[in-house]
Amino acid sequence: MARSATDVIQYFEDFHPGQVIDVGSVEVAQADIIAFARHYDPQPMHIDPDAARRTIYGGLIASGWHTVSLFMRLLVENLVAKTVSLGSPGVDELRWPLPVRPGDRLSGQMEVLETRASSSRPTMGIVRWRGEVRNQDGQLVMSLLGTNFFGRRPG
Amino acid sequence: MARSATDVIQYFEDFHPGQVIDVGSVEVAQADIIAFARHYDPQPMHIDPDAARRTIYGGLIASGWHTVSLFMRLLVENLVAKTVSLGSPGVDELRWPLPVRPGDRLSGQMEVLETRASSSRPTMGIVRWRGEVRNQDGQLVMSLLGTNFFGRRPG
Repeated sequence: MARSATDVIQYFEDFHPGQVIDVGSVEVAQADIIAFARHYDPQPMHIDPDAARRTIYGGLIASGWHTVSLFMRLLVENLVAKTVSLGSPGVDELRWPLPVRPGDRLSGQMEVLETRASSSRPTMGIVRWRGEVRNQDGQLVMSLLGTNFFGRRPG
Repeated sequence: MARSATDVIQYFEDFHPGQVIDVGSVEVAQADIIAFARHYDPQPMHIDPDAARRTIYGGLIASGWHTVSLFMRLLVENLVAKTVSLGSPGVDELRWPLPVRPGDRLSGQMEVLETRASSSRPTMGIVRWRGEVRNQDGQLVMSLLGTNFFGRRPG
């Protein structure tokens, strides 16, 4: 089930296995691909359109770290900022099955896999989820398994 | 064994299990933490020093995606740029065991875990490795398991 606009997800108790949360979309401009990669991943296929054409990718593609950072922004703006978020210990199985190219529009989604109370911290709960990013053609360009901590509903 | 300055790692054949490769270090300025997070992870503990003081972290900390992106830059500048790199399908077990704070100096290292020829593409080899990032006190602030493709030595 997709989240409706009127749902509010704030506390650990608001997450349920099977829940699918749409976190919105973002268009990836060529200038942004190059700017990110110049700072953090200065490989020819990410920073130089001419050199990129001569690689196995046949043209400029976004750094995978740019793609996951854009997904993080969607996640924060459209979900995490409204919650009692207590951070994350890490992620697993981060994959980039297809390249992201200039002009692509990326849509993010997370599906809740598991929720459990913390045994060490009674005010906290743990949510495990799978994240997916698809392009405008519905192709999967990124997936990951995430773990996040959220505060429990008081009282 | 650490890589000496005269070693050249260029092809798949230059990687060996047990090899430890130092990829250099970078200092993390508060302005950079805030600039990255405003774009990609706008949570209070990453963008607002005052609000960050009131969180469980007790002060501004870098986004985990910023830390991994800085590690990627070290990896590209000091290793990947000199190799016949053919990309990466993803990473596993990305962890942030301790926060990164303004003024920290981060050092990156990778240890080669496994190398094997590609069965589908004879000109390519696959390298699995563990990456670690430590701060100026030697504390582990990030780790991950990476997989990368490299071209094989011709002839």
